[in-house]
Formats: sequence, C-alpha cells, structure tokens
Amino acid sequence: MQDNVGRELPKTDTKNLLSEPEASKAKTSLVSVFERWLLRKFLRLLGEPPFSFVLWNGEEIKPRNHQIKTRIEILSRNTLYKLLYNPGLYFGEFYCSGAIKIDNDLLSFMDDLHLAALYRDESPNIVWRMLRRPPHRRSTTLSGSKDNIHRHYDLGNEFYQLWLDKAAMQYTCAYYPDPAMALEQAQMAKMHHVCRKIWLQPGETVAEAGCGWGGLALFMAKRYGVTVKAYNISHEQVAFARERAVREALSDRVEYVEDDYRNIRGQFDVFVSVGMLEHVGPENYRTLGAVIDHCLKDSGRGLVHSVGGNTREPMNEWLEKRIFPGSYVPTLREMMEVFEPFAFSILDVENLRLHYAKTLKEWLQRFDQNCQRVHDLYDETFVRTWRLYLAGCSAAFTTGALQLYQVVFARPHKNDLPWSRQHLYGTGYDFSADH
Amino acid sequence: MQDNVGRELPKTDTKNLLSEPEASKAKTSLVSVFERWLLRKFLRLLGEPPFSFVLWNGEEIKPRNHQIKTRIEILSRNTLYKLLYNPGLYFGEFYCSGAIKIDNDLLSFMDDLHLAALYRDESPNIVWRMLRRPPHRRSTTLSGSKDNIHRHYDLGNEFYQLWLDKAAMQYTCAYYPDPAMALEQAQMAKMHHVCRKIWLQPGETVAEAGCGWGGLALFMAKRYGVTVKAYNISHEQVAFARERAVREALSDRVEYVEDDYRNIRGQFDVFVSVGMLEHVGPENYRTLGAVIDHCLKDSGRGLVHSVGGNTREPMNEWLEKRIFPGSYVPTLREMMEVFEPFAFSILDVENLRLHYAKTLKEWLQRFDQNCQRVHDLYDETFVRTWRLYLAGCSAAFTTGALQLYQVVFARPHKNDLPWSRQHLYGTGYDFSADH
Repeated sequence: MQDNVGRELPKTDTKNLLSEPEASKAKTSLVSVFERWLLRKFLRLLGEPPFSFVLWNGEEIKPRNHQIKTRIEILSRNTLYKLLYNPGLYFGEFYCSGAIKIDNDLLSFMDDLHLAALYRDESPNIVWRMLRRPPHRRSTTLSGSKDNIHRHYDLGNEFYQLWLDKAAMQYTCAYYPDPAMALEQAQMAKMHHVCRKIWLQPGETVAEAGCGWGGLALFMAKRYGVTVKAYNISHEQVAFARERAVREALSDRVEYVEDDYRNIRGQFDVFVSVGMLEHVGPENYRTLGAVIDHCLKDSGRGLVHSVGGNTREPMNEWLEKRIFPGSYVPTLREMMEVFEPFAFSILDVENLRLHYAKTLKEWLQRFDQNCQRVHDLYDETFVRTWRLYLAGCSAAFTTGALQLYQVVFARPHKNDLPWSRQHLYGTGYDFSADH
Repeated sequence: MQDNVGRELPKTDTKNLLSEPEASKAKTSLVSVFERWLLRKFLRLLGEPPFSFVLWNGEEIKPRNHQIKTRIEILSRNTLYKLLYNPGLYFGEFYCSGAIKIDNDLLSFMDDLHLAALYRDESPNIVWRMLRRPPHRRSTTLSGSKDNIHRHYDLGNEFYQLWLDKAAMQYTCAYYPDPAMALEQAQMAKMHHVCRKIWLQPGETVAEAGCGWGGLALFMAKRYGVTVKAYNISHEQVAFARERAVREALSDRVEYVEDDYRNIRGQFDVFVSVGMLEHVGPENYRTLGAVIDHCLKDSGRGLVHSVGGNTREPMNEWLEKRIFPGSYVPTLREMMEVFEPFAFSILDVENLRLHYAKTLKEWLQRFDQNCQRVHDLYDETFVRTWRLYLAGCSAAFTTGALQLYQVVFARPHKNDLPWSRQHLYGTGYDFSADH
C-alpha cells in the first residue's frame, strides 16, 4: 500500500485469474453439467432475479421462468468459480475489472438483485456457509480508523465536488419533504431538520463528531446562532472546512479539530453526529456512548444519524474492502448500545430510507455527468467501482435492505423540549441565502 | 386465591408484622445508633431526597442538608427493617396498609423520590444486593397471562369508568398536541395519531392485540373505514366491547375475540397493539414477532405502543405484585427483539413520556374525585394502593425514569408510505362526533 493510497485505488487482481492463453482455451471449453447445475442453484439462491448468465463459450443459463432483463457475461471458468465461492466480494471485483459484463443499466440491475433477495425462499446451505470464511473487517482503533477514513475521504476534494451538492458538500442522506426538491435544497432541508430535532437555541454549544467538509457546523453557527466544535480525522476535509470557515468569517464560532471522536473534550449542550457511526464499529459503541455521556451537560441532548440494517449481518465484503474499510451497518438494536448503558432517553427515531435512495440516485446522475473528469483524475476501474457502489447502495435503500436512522436522545430528565414533533413540520424552510 | 380475586385485592400482611403488644413496646423503645446510621445511609442511597424519617419514639432522622418537604412516619422497628431490606416492595406494602404515613401530597412526594434517584451518586453495595433475592416475576404462559390480566383488568368496568375518559375508555397514554386539551380530546387525538402513523386506508383489515374496552377498534372502523379483529383475554373488557359494538351497529366490522395474542389467526394489512407489550414479558417477544410476521401481509405495517425504560431493570416489585402481575418494562433495545428476527423495518419511534405523565395526573385527579365510590366498592387499602400506583407512575414519567414508545414498523420493501411525517401534523383532528 502506498502513502497516497487514497488517490490510487488498489487494482483488482483479475489479470492473474485469467491469462490470455487460458482465455482462448476457455472460449472453446464446454460448460459441464455440474457448472450448469451450480449456476441454476445460484440463481435460486439469489431468489430467481430476471438474469441470465452468458458463459465463455456463448452458452446462456436462464432463470426458471425465462424472464430476463439482464445478461451477465462471465468470460472464464476461473471467474465463474470465484464468483460462486464468494459472490459478495467477487461480483464487485470482476465487474470493476471488466471480467464480468452486464448488458443493462446498472441501477435497474442492482434494484432487481436486491428485490429478488427480499423474496428468496432458499438460503445458502450449511456446506456453502462453512466453506466461506467470515469476512475480515478492518481495525477501528485510533490508527486503524485514521487509515480507514483516509482511504475514502481523502480521495481529493475536487472529486467529491464533482457530484455532491454545491452549497454544503453534504456526503450524507438528504431530506426531501417535497420529493420534487433539488439536491441542494434537500441537503439544506436535512440540516434544518437536524437542527430542529435537537431544538438548537442561540448561544448554545455543540460538539460534532465526524463533520465531513464542515457544512453542517457552519450552517448551525450561521442559521441557529450556536458555537460548534467539530471533530474529523480526514485531513483533506478539515483543511477544506477551515478554509471555508475563514472565508465566511465564522472561525470564531466554528472550530474544526483534526482528531478522533474518542478525544472529544469539553462540555456541550448538544452532541451531533451525522454519518459517522457507520465507521465506528460495534466494538466501540459503548466508548462512543461514554464520550457522549462525558461531554454532554445535564440538560444535554443530541442526534445520531446513521445507515442501519433490519437484521444483524456482516457488511458486504466488497464494499468493506473497496469503499468503506472498517465500516459496519448496525441494526437499531445495536445502535442502542451507544445510549442504553448511559441511561439516555431515546426521544425520536426516524427512518429516511427512501430519502437516501433518492439522494444516491442524484449523486449517481451527477457522477455520470462528470464521468470523463473522474476518469481523467483516476482510471476506468475507479469509475466502475464508484458507479457500482452508488448504484448498489441506492438499490439497497430502495428495496429496504438498508435503512437510514436519525436518533434523537436526551438526558432522562430533560423536560423543556417541545411536547410534540409539530415544530419539525409547522413552517417551511428558509433556503434564501447560500446556506 | 379466590376466583373473583380481581374484586378482592389481596391484603398486605402487615398485621402479622406488628401485633398490638409489640407496637406499644416499640413506642417506648429507643432508636439505636446503628438504626440511625442505617437510615442516614438509606437517605444517601435514595440520592438525599427532601425527606425525614419520624420513628416510633418520635425521633426524626433528617437528610444531610436538612431540607425537608415530606416526613415519613415509621411506626415500628419491624416496619423499619423490612423497609430497609426491600424498599421496592415494602414501601408500597406499608404505605397501603397504613404502617407508613407521609405528611405530603403523594404526587409531590413521588416526584421528589424519583428526581433524587436520578442524581444519586451512590449505588447499593454488593452486600445489600446479594442479600436481596432477585424479584420473582409471575408466569406469562397462556394460563399465567390469563390470570395476570384477570387480576388487573377484570376489577370491574364500573371502577375504570369512574376515572378513565368517558368517550373511548382508553387505559393507555393520551396524546396532547396541545397541553391544554381535555383528557377526552387527548385520547381521541391519540387514536387519530395512531391511525395516521399506520396510514390506515378504507377497506383495510387490522389485527389488534390487547384491545382493552375496544375503543380503538371501534374508532378505526368508524373513522377510518377498516375492519378490525381485536384480541383480548380480559373477559370483562371483551364483554363490554362487544356490547358497545352492537350498540353502535359496528359488530359487522369489528370482531372482538376473547383469546391470547399468540392465537391470532388470519392475514391482515395492519397489526396494532397499544399497551399490551408490558404484559407480554421479554421471554415472549420473539413469539410476538413471529405472530406479527405470520399475520401480516407482504404489504403490511404496524404499530406497537408500550411503556419503556432507559436501562434494563427489573420491574418495581410492589408494582408487579399488587398492580401488574407478570409485567415487564423493556428498553427500546429489548423491544427490537420483537422486530429484528423477522427483518421488519422500524420506520418511526416517538417517545410520549410527558404525555403519559399528564394522562396519569388526569386519571389521579378523577380517581380522587370519585374516591368515596371506590372506597365503597372496595376498601381503604385498595384506594391507597391505586393512588400510590397512579402517583408513582406519573412521577416516573415526569422524571424520565419511564418512557412511552410508539414504534411504527413495516415489511422491508413497503415503499408506498408517506415520504415524511408531515401528514401526522398537517391538519387538526376531527373531534366532532362522540367517536
């Protein structure tokens, strides 16, 4: 791994899987009865999605009902066996390297894949599950986390500016009270929604854990009159955020600290964390809870915004390897390990799943519009990797495989909060200024 | 236990604790240094509430800061030791039998007690905890539950009519979008809130688990045009509900089934349960989840409304013994054991704690207004028991020791629900007809 690993995405090693002479041999090699059986079994395990497999000799293996929306081309026997052994890793690897091709729009394909999985009536049997080693998730120690975050968030601010919203560079789920909103508005609506949920009052102090490019911290200071201390371990993001705070003459009220959430110091009225929990890892939830407990005043409250799952499952191995090293998607039950040991009261949980599906579709569209520039900055594999990630996540939120939770919590005896959630909906948002 | 145990509340056995000759001996008996030390220690463990103890010889043990709002009179040494050994059980027992007296308004006293506990800096030590056996919670098997429910809900419909809302006999947390609302309106607002949360559509079918006197089922049928199958194991409640359905000519659309939630049969669009989970017991959460999974259509969704806690704790022993046998208050994390094994998506969690504190205060006020009638129906111990229960619970909700959660859930791929929660707040409620 190189020092600037973020900029140079590790290449998949598919070239070693299928050398040229092998490939030409494979072309003429017949598909065995066993291989056909394996592929039919695989389709059943996937829940009979509308896919067929086109193999190295041109033979097509069709689903039971012969309804085909996507043809998946597998160029070699080696690719086939690796895919069957660990589809969660190798589909991504081979798609990105070009060893697997699909003849359909990536988003529709991923939607169909996730949808079929929802209703499959057969689970991988015990032999298959024993063959597969449990995926290894990268370390989330102080140094492990720093490396994990570096590999994703330090890819270069220019890259993210190509497809995130212009106004606040929000790399988290937007909020569309009206589905016709533009991304810029929806990201601002998200920030308003967060600020209203935690009932921000002018003059209060806020600790933010994982502040991205600093958009929310600036927004809170500017629009809600609070003082923010925002933590982040991505060097590039913090540099960007600090520059912006200076430019907007807010650096007296927004302090960006390049440090881990575990090192948050001070006493605050509010704790907020939008899109960091996914990187914390369940082994550190109690530590995060202790940090919140330690830094929140007796009248304190807060909000944690995170991707969630319905059931406890390991991360998709390809996503953990290529996109979000060390990450983990908790269930709501697992998220409670942050709050329950410290007797915080949960006040409100909202699931914004469909808002994230829409956000991701919007990102993918902007990414595609800037595809050539991304290609120039990186390479074809990088483009395919990021398209697969954005499309795959959008499909997961669309089909309900992933959730987006905003959890509002407070000290148990916090009685001066609004009686109902009416204040979140009473009036429209002010989108007037450039946040 | 007699067959009509519900009507004859088991008396506390304090008469055996302190016979007459003993009592007169106690009067003259001096308080030892050890007993004074124990009581001061006890006050510290309670978090130094503004209480003093007045003992059998007139001696008063004061809190450290000498701020006293309530004097607790303990009439005998025997009472003192039992109280210290198991305050969670014996305070209630002795207060109800009259062996302990307090000279303050019960609600203020309970508020102070709960508030002090929130901020106590000392916990019971290991010796004290080892001395105390873990409290025994009554069985929640099919027959155990039937007995538990019978002991509380079959006390007589007349009794509950004395202090519940007139319109719908709702024995669960009301919803006060405006805190100035009357109880009747707030209970109707609660039912509207529930129906809006589950997005009820005319013609749909609903399974209700634990339907009380049937108010919500009737309301849903009448106001939202659905068909309801409502389950309850309280004979008296079901009889009342059926009569009312006939009177309102709704028995073709609302069926009351005198049976356990475990025996729910059929396929429904919606599952709803308001105030039953507290009686289910965590040992049955997975079973409840399986029942919901089994009876919900693929497009199904539902709502579970329950008292909750911030941290995992056994029920107050007195409350479990005298008021709600077999009951248990889960944390939100524990509640997830209903939903997570069946991959339901949690869509919304709202905490209505302060609404329940207000509801309970309203009930207590109406109870007090009808105190003489309750006394005539039962006896003085019964009146004291119920006042202590209502005041204690109100204080627990006011101080944040208890929560009230409404959890909305759905099948993972339920995409035709509203995008935001705006529809819960957009328009006022129609309170026109007497539902």
